[in-house]
Amino acid sequence: MAVNLNPPDAAAVLPVEGTQLYTAQAGVKYADRDDLTLMVLNSTNSIGAVFTQNRFCAAPVQIAKQHLATDAGIRALVVNTGNANAGTGKQGREDALAVCRAVAAQVGCAPEQVLPFSTGVILEPLPVDKIIAALPKVKPQGWAEAAAAIMTTDTVPKAASRELELDGKTVRFSGMAKGAGMIHPNMATMLAFIATDAAIARPLLQQMVAEVADVSFNAISIDGDTSTNDSFVVVATGKSGLPKITSADDVHYHAVKAVLADLALELAQAIVRDGEGAGKFITVAVKNARSREEARSVGYAIARSPLVKTAFYASDPNLGRILCAIGYAGIADLDVDRLKVYLGDVLVAENGGRAAAYTEAAGQAVMAEAEITVTVDLQRGDTEARIYTCDLSKEYVAINADYRS
Amino acid sequence: MAVNLNPPDAAAVLPVEGTQLYTAQAGVKYADRDDLTLMVLNSTNSIGAVFTQNRFCAAPVQIAKQHLATDAGIRALVVNTGNANAGTGKQGREDALAVCRAVAAQVGCAPEQVLPFSTGVILEPLPVDKIIAALPKVKPQGWAEAAAAIMTTDTVPKAASRELELDGKTVRFSGMAKGAGMIHPNMATMLAFIATDAAIARPLLQQMVAEVADVSFNAISIDGDTSTNDSFVVVATGKSGLPKITSADDVHYHAVKAVLADLALELAQAIVRDGEGAGKFITVAVKNARSREEARSVGYAIARSPLVKTAFYASDPNLGRILCAIGYAGIADLDVDRLKVYLGDVLVAENGGRAAAYTEAAGQAVMAEAEITVTVDLQRGDTEARIYTCDLSKEYVAINADYRS
Repeated sequence: MAVNLNPPDAAAVLPVEGTQLYTAQAGVKYADRDDLTLMVLNSTNSIGAVFTQNRFCAAPVQIAKQHLATDAGIRALVVNTGNANAGTGKQGREDALAVCRAVAAQVGCAPEQVLPFSTGVILEPLPVDKIIAALPKVKPQGWAEAAAAIMTTDTVPKAASRELELDGKTVRFSGMAKGAGMIHPNMATMLAFIATDAAIARPLLQQMVAEVADVSFNAISIDGDTSTNDSFVVVATGKSGLPKITSADDVHYHAVKAVLADLALELAQAIVRDGEGAGKFITVAVKNARSREEARSVGYAIARSPLVKTAFYASDPNLGRILCAIGYAGIADLDVDRLKVYLGDVLVAENGGRAAAYTEAAGQAVMAEAEITVTVDLQRGDTEARIYTCDLSKEYVAINADYRS
Repeated sequence: MAVNLNPPDAAAVLPVEGTQLYTAQAGVKYADRDDLTLMVLNSTNSIGAVFTQNRFCAAPVQIAKQHLATDAGIRALVVNTGNANAGTGKQGREDALAVCRAVAAQVGCAPEQVLPFSTGVILEPLPVDKIIAALPKVKPQGWAEAAAAIMTTDTVPKAASRELELDGKTVRFSGMAKGAGMIHPNMATMLAFIATDAAIARPLLQQMVAEVADVSFNAISIDGDTSTNDSFVVVATGKSGLPKITSADDVHYHAVKAVLADLALELAQAIVRDGEGAGKFITVAVKNARSREEARSVGYAIARSPLVKTAFYASDPNLGRILCAIGYAGIADLDVDRLKVYLGDVLVAENGGRAAAYTEAAGQAVMAEAEITVTVDLQRGDTEARIYTCDLSKEYVAINADYRS
């Protein structure tokens, strides 16, 4: 099950000048498919990246952060699927470095100019020899093929492009992502990579990536578990010929950031749509909060509640569960008599209880849809947030409980 | 499914002098069973109580808090099952007060000397006429029968007693509880009532109840949802003849508190054992934390993780999911290389990864048990906490998704 959009048409995911993708079959875990991806970058790019906050962060995440901190300039990204190289201690870091050294030798750069990424089973040693042996065999590929090569239990590859006309020049953005929960066979990971040929100064790009992540990859929840390997990386190659954006006051800053955010949101939503066992795609829109943090707390309380998520699974307009989740979202001075809750366009709750005009039939009609928006109007401020989630199904439990049997 | 202990032998749940229980059939929702419970109290009792922190707290919770604050002295508790009187706004408060007035007239006290409790469906008006009509029909009962009359979807009544010999006198404690998740048909509630014939001054009793709740009813999680109606009330009738305990320095303070905590823990664990769809009873023991809050954060991260809970359901020693949950428990400076994790007595993780001597067979043997203790030794302080939970099964989803079908 999934509420995927149509898989990307390979021709519609456009190459980005300054990046070249390659894939190969390393046989880390999966047979008969490519599982190793290499992205080689031009020498003048800038990079912004955000990583998991999990204290058990994986070895490649630790190495990638170190390499970004050297300011040596990044020339290649390498991604293996099938093994997360997480919970692997000191040996794991040595293995990630060994992969970086092999990539560096192949593309002609220093090891600290390589960022490693891994996704798949954790607590297992990385089969570093298989990866190094496969590196020379990589073949040039497009984004759609690379998106397929980074999948774990995803049911569809996730990739998309955008183009933006600015001052007679075309700025291009392409991206790919993977993730479908914290997945088989232990937990996996959300990995997302976007490249653009815009030129963006590095400190500004880093800030932009953090802000974009906040409304995309940090606004989704499938099962509430934060993985050890989550990474979101944006490469700006500067090949579009448009002048470098160096401050938020630059004329093109907002246009470029808006397209980046739009593409990141599509990829983030694609992960939720492919959520393990998902049959419904749910948007929780929280309006008129006093702060974005407050709006996010309410959104996540609803998006994480197993009772709300099973009600969506059952297409049951179980308003009490939504109100209950709002009630425990941690807003100490929340006046429940003031807020309004909508299912789709239907006002379902106000004055601390069910709306007088609400009918079960109206709620049922909304809940029968595959895509549903829950709107909570807190009526206490002017800030909003959106959180994206899916339902909790028997299939989710089956996927996460039965895989060893 | 459930991992219940044997249901209580009615004769083993002992009456407490100064309290008299009654039940009747009001027909609020369930047919052919008693659903209305009245507890009439002696005039010299003291009461301590803790209530849900949910902002959508139910009308009876609001009224009970008001009545406790009047210092009028409480003479009766009234509990209906089948309707939670939550999300019912102003009318809900008026309905709860109407029930208090009827009880007061019947037992001969003022309405503010009555504490009302409700559990069951939310967002539905309380059928106050049915409750008031049934009040005159109540019959005297023991604790086991009352425990059955407060059930919603519980599969067994939950009641137990303790006796403590102090200075040649016997102090008795009896209690009952209900709850099995946030339950059919919207969400319900954890309700727990304990009476003792010890004499305990009210401010001290209130503090004792809060402390006991912290290690019992506030240390359990079935699905992470905090209900609108949760209440835990302790009545001390003072009928044992033992001198009143007025301070934590009194000679009997610690003995009485320990027995109260032990009884509350048995009732709290009985709720988890009867958790919706539960097949495993899990204790998460977090040791050597810097603070109790830190220990509880780690315990709850594990106890709330759908991935950990489905692994228990599958009897799968999926260590990565446990480590991952520890990693996102919010301890910013956690050194994952120092902590140790045990499944039962088996050391499963140390040095940031799987323990060298660990074998899948040893982990599997522990996971096959119906009762499992996960121990996390953080090795950074000297404080501990225990959290109690159950597995997440397909039956949980079915119970919470299918009930309207």
